[in-house]
Amino acid sequence: SVGSAVRTGPKAPDFRTASQTTHHVLARAEENARLNDYEQGVKTAFDSIVPTLKRISALQHEPDFESQAQAIARRELGFELPEDILADAWIDQLDMRHLYAGCTFATYHRFCDDFFTTDPLAVEDGEKNFNGGFEGFLQTCGFHTLDISPCADGRLAHLIRYVLRLPHRAVRRKSYAGALFDIENSVQKWVEVEMLRFRAGVPNTADAPTRYLKVVAYHYSSVDPEHGGCAAHGSDTAKAASAGLERLLGFQQAIENSFCCGASIDLLLIGLDTDTDAIRVHVPDGEGAMALDRYVDALELYAATARQDASRARHDIQDAVRQTSPGVAEGMARLIERLIENNFSQIAYVRDYHGDHYADIGHAERFIGAGVGFEEIQLRNLMYFAYLDTVEEAASDLDVGIRIFTELNCRRGLPVPVVVRFDYHGQVPGARERAVTRCRRVTEALQSRYRDLFGRGLLHVLQVVRDCNADAPIEILECTVNAERKAGGH
Amino acid sequence: SVGSAVRTGPKAPDFRTASQTTHHVLARAEENARLNDYEQGVKTAFDSIVPTLKRISALQHEPDFESQAQAIARRELGFELPEDILADAWIDQLDMRHLYAGCTFATYHRFCDDFFTTDPLAVEDGEKNFNGGFEGFLQTCGFHTLDISPCADGRLAHLIRYVLRLPHRAVRRKSYAGALFDIENSVQKWVEVEMLRFRAGVPNTADAPTRYLKVVAYHYSSVDPEHGGCAAHGSDTAKAASAGLERLLGFQQAIENSFCCGASIDLLLIGLDTDTDAIRVHVPDGEGAMALDRYVDALELYAATARQDASRARHDIQDAVRQTSPGVAEGMARLIERLIENNFSQIAYVRDYHGDHYADIGHAERFIGAGVGFEEIQLRNLMYFAYLDTVEEAASDLDVGIRIFTELNCRRGLPVPVVVRFDYHGQVPGARERAVTRCRRVTEALQSRYRDLFGRGLLHVLQVVRDCNADAPIEILECTVNAERKAGGH
Ligand SMILES: [Zn+2]
Ligand SMILES: [Zn+2]
Ligand SMILES: [Zn+2]
Ligand SMILES: [Zn+2]
Repeated sequence: SVGSAVRTGPKAPDFRTASQTTHHVLARAEENARLNDYEQGVKTAFDSIVPTLKRISALQHEPDFESQAQAIARRELGFELPEDILADAWIDQLDMRHLYAGCTFATYHRFCDDFFTTDPLAVEDGEKNFNGGFEGFLQTCGFHTLDISPCADGRLAHLIRYVLRLPHRAVRRKSYAGALFDIENSVQKWVEVEMLRFRAGVPNTADAPTRYLKVVAYHYSSVDPEHGGCAAHGSDTAKAASAGLERLLGFQQAIENSFCCGASIDLLLIGLDTDTDAIRVHVPDGEGAMALDRYVDALELYAATARQDASRARHDIQDAVRQTSPGVAEGMARLIERLIENNFSQIAYVRDYHGDHYADIGHAERFIGAGVGFEEIQLRNLMYFAYLDTVEEAASDLDVGIRIFTELNCRRGLPVPVVVRFDYHGQVPGARERAVTRCRRVTEALQSRYRDLFGRGLLHVLQVVRDCNADAPIEILECTVNAERKAGGH
Repeated sequence: SVGSAVRTGPKAPDFRTASQTTHHVLARAEENARLNDYEQGVKTAFDSIVPTLKRISALQHEPDFESQAQAIARRELGFELPEDILADAWIDQLDMRHLYAGCTFATYHRFCDDFFTTDPLAVEDGEKNFNGGFEGFLQTCGFHTLDISPCADGRLAHLIRYVLRLPHRAVRRKSYAGALFDIENSVQKWVEVEMLRFRAGVPNTADAPTRYLKVVAYHYSSVDPEHGGCAAHGSDTAKAASAGLERLLGFQQAIENSFCCGASIDLLLIGLDTDTDAIRVHVPDGEGAMALDRYVDALELYAATARQDASRARHDIQDAVRQTSPGVAEGMARLIERLIENNFSQIAYVRDYHGDHYADIGHAERFIGAGVGFEEIQLRNLMYFAYLDTVEEAASDLDVGIRIFTELNCRRGLPVPVVVRFDYHGQVPGARERAVTRCRRVTEALQSRYRDLFGRGLLHVLQVVRDCNADAPIEILECTVNAERKAGGH
């Protein structure tokens, strides 16, 4: 039902090389190859942990176990295991829960360091610099800020950089279960952005006729609509979409009612099929109003334009957007066209590297991320993301995440690895100390809320902070893996 | 050591009438009488609860107990007691914990309704309207906002309206244990204020050369310095003052480092002797810098100027402020002079109605208030105030409050009454629902954090919201007193 994956063009020597022609003239095959290399590299690192630990476990009663185990770990995982865990294996047996959590955190650490050192998802220099790059384009569309709230679901974690092919540093992202972002928090962010325009002319001056654009991305599953959709909305697509639209309108009204002088924001609702990564865009009409049943489906448009030349395909995207909502504002239309064209590359990406749809259409996150930050997480199904200041306010988001990991990990005896992370602005005195305090407070609240799991060794927490102004690597603080081991374990 | 309470002037027929001459020419005796009437009225209402319940308790085995009890309650407390509690008294005995909590909440409710209906602490019409009133005066001093963070200690709850004699609606107040306000939260408020100046010209336009003034009020005890000071700082005055100053500087640096174009704020550190209500003001120098040992002591100045005429006394206040910090900015000096002159009335108030110092120099709060709002709380030792969004972030503030009430109430078997309150802006859609949700969430978190007390019936929570834009009365939501009774009590 998602169109046949007909391949055209010259035979490629290897199914996965960059030179292979993709399904669609607008899909960028080289970019896809580069993004796929990166995604596979990161996921392979995480997915090597379980088989490697299994191999090591099988050796635990051999005489030179420790040196054998370390040799395997170095070769397969790229780091050594904590010596004391290996040394204690003879007493009882190898503490696999601690090893698993420790290896997940070590892999995360290496992955982060790589991200902030080599900038693997940087956009091409050409795009970055032409006409002010994406920020410049966004302003010509009438927007000075793009703020996207996807669902916290890990299957949307690649929304910015992969699905929409946007430069991740140019977009604000805050993930919430069911995409139900916090209105008060968003009003504060809006105020901050407008303030900076007034005082500092960043990203443009306050008299420029641009607005703040808030986007909600809900999601659904074309392969298994009854079960593969949004857990926060009982896998009910209509409910996910209408809840997202309602939240958007609430945010807009909050701005309009709290500030005078015609203050307002623009809104956009997007749906994501997490099986094919195709988006649907609810094109706003001339008044900015959206309807749940009025959208452009990128997958249909992809199929319909697959065999055309580039300019004809672009023309058809334009037509589709305008036919959906004839009065749509010119700038909004241009932004949507760009999102759809970008999404074509991602549709081709899934087809090329995964087939009609992903094999892992369900949850397959490797860990939970809780806090503020996580700029490096731009990959699908790597992390369940709960944007939060406190466990108290984000309890339901966290409960969804813990439920997912109870299925994924605890069912087979593996712990839930949680990275608690707070990025801070290093130029503000005391900001690092406050981020550290926040990490500790959230960790304690997690251990208290999920005290049963924690008590059984099935919840492990790594605390991390990062100075996001300094382009710095992450800084590792406490970790329950070490703490418990020091205290003698369970 | 706080000066002798020499009384001058004509003999007053009654020690407490308004016509009595106070100690100081600048002290406003009529205002004092009005404020004292109000304070005594409110406190008498709360303090009638225990003796009334004792009387009722003594009758619980009389045949017409229920009607006798209600008659006493109506007469002494002004409301009836819950019938089912009285009716169940024959089964076991009267549930005094529930009655006590219920009466405290009913008294609070009546007190709030009175406050929002009759505006008992309104400033005189003359002062309100002359030259734009206090806001106008503040702007001539160079400030568009006065934001004060006192300690959460109930002995500072009357700081704005009594100690400093300011119109409470013209001042932002957020109380934190030890006056250690939240810097990130304050930065957000600052951004909001500046934003409104830019967009709406409220309270003045952004080009007016005024600044945001942040004040910290720490406290100490002249009668019992070792034990009567700030609990959050171990009753160490130097520590309380230096921690407050440090927090102020952190806030200022956060503003300066986060926003360009010379954005900054002004700071002022004030100390309060909670036994005499005299303040000390750490007058900033020409650069705005303050020192812990450089301050004007209002009590000394009061004594030194007591026998002068008004213009000479005012002149001496001016001299004292300028001699303390010769370079002090003209506007800052004028504000401080006003605060000191206002404080003279409060010093006289304590002397007239309480003697050399308050009898209740220690804690005597009647309940804990947690949340956002509580504009009506302008009375000393009525409520311990924890300004908070979540229990998680305010845990240490709440712990201090619970510790105080464990001493005050639980020690003699009475529960801790907690009012959880969130004011909201009614013009923002969904704001009421979010306030209601927040009340429930904070209540659950309180019950979880203090589950031992709660389980023993020693913690009762009343949930309240209020539309602060509508000048509305408070709206009563859930109350554990009813909930538990419905569920069959303990
Ligand atoms: Zn979801
Ligand atoms: Zn463990
Ligand atoms: Zn204190
Ligand atoms: Zn009870």
